Amino acid sequence: MREAVEKKVLSENDRLAAALRRRFHDENILCVNLISSPGSGKTMLLEKTLAAFPKDTSVVVLTGDIQTDNDAKRLARYGFPVRQIVTGGTCHLDARMIERHLNEIGFQGPGILFIENVGNLVCPSSYDLGEAAKIVLLSVTEGEDKPLKYPGIFHRASLMLLTKTDLLPHVDFDPALAHENARKIHPEIEFIAISARSGENFSQWLKWLDVLREKVCPQITAAN
Amino acid sequence: MREAVEKKVLSENDRLAAALRRRFHDENILCVNLISSPGSGKTMLLEKTLAAFPKDTSVVVLTGDIQTDNDAKRLARYGFPVRQIVTGGTCHLDARMIERHLNEIGFQGPGILFIENVGNLVCPSSYDLGEAAKIVLLSVTEGEDKPLKYPGIFHRASLMLLTKTDLLPHVDFDPALAHENARKIHPEIEFIAISARSGENFSQWLKWLDVLREKVCPQITAAN
Repeated sequence: MREAVEKKVLSENDRLAAALRRRFHDENILCVNLISSPGSGKTMLLEKTLAAFPKDTSVVVLTGDIQTDNDAKRLARYGFPVRQIVTGGTCHLDARMIERHLNEIGFQGPGILFIENVGNLVCPSSYDLGEAAKIVLLSVTEGEDKPLKYPGIFHRASLMLLTKTDLLPHVDFDPALAHENARKIHPEIEFIAISARSGENFSQWLKWLDVLREKVCPQITAAN
Repeated sequence: MREAVEKKVLSENDRLAAALRRRFHDENILCVNLISSPGSGKTMLLEKTLAAFPKDTSVVVLTGDIQTDNDAKRLARYGFPVRQIVTGGTCHLDARMIERHLNEIGFQGPGILFIENVGNLVCPSSYDLGEAAKIVLLSVTEGEDKPLKYPGIFHRASLMLLTKTDLLPHVDFDPALAHENARKIHPEIEFIAISARSGENFSQWLKWLDVLREKVCPQITAAN
């Protein structure tokens, strides 16, 4: 009974996500969906990313949380439109939420849409939001075995960002092993190890994003 | 439709959890349920806790994960019975899983049952497992605002363990603010800041557990 309902919910979500994907294509919108545990650094990554964009770049952010609009407040300081989606208990964003908030914010392409999902390595991985890429963040404080323990999201993500590398000297964490574990789940997954705090390899992440932009939406003005 | 099914699932779980709670009471079993994000240190906490117990203490551990039996392997080294519950995609443990695995492992009280839930700050909070206490772990790398963003679990937990305090010199994190945010959600929540790695305040956690044991199951031999 419960599984049948879940299946129906997911298939309805897939239908709405397909419509979003068509809309993103037609309007030249590059949409990426950031997924991680709570506290892996999604908001910090977005803060530094927005700070790196020229002010006339067409960018919006939709950020999901169970409660509070803390993240939207942090992100709004960079001058781009940001909207908080408070799910009120739901453990992930779904395509209907994205569609509604995009319509309310009145975003038109060409441009870049960042989606910061609810902090959760499990539930968000099943919900297609029409994005061009899912990006999974894992911080160096979380343990190298997480790709094996949460295979769903590592299987679906195009890119794994290993975050908080400035903490590597203070923790027992082997980046090569984390990468190897992710490749066991998804051999083609791309991998960048960064620190938003120290700036280490941050340009590599911006470059990755730019390559994706060039591929998906060459109409958008380059951001860096 | 979906909400009606979720409500039914939760009410069925509550019924099974009530039966577990009676069983724990009748058999003098102290059950605690550890909940946190992936990588906040649940397994490490349990490793150090088991290492501190005399070998003749009656203790079992049920540890939940989406995939892998890594945690059970880590925990089995301490000589107490450990069983991995692989949920295969489900984002939390439920009372039926606990009942089945307890029966299969053949655990009889008096004794202590540690449940390590699936790494997730959202879903496990709604599922009563018949435990005497929920314990929420938050690591100092995750941000002080997490109690406000994930109020469900902080509302239901008896104790908040702030973990990985050995990393405090290397991160921007204010333990007093994290505690204050947790108290906004749950004014009576207890709070201990520990490092399983350095051992800081670890005796305070063992003491907390012992006070709970004395209150709930005075029949169990003191572990420390």
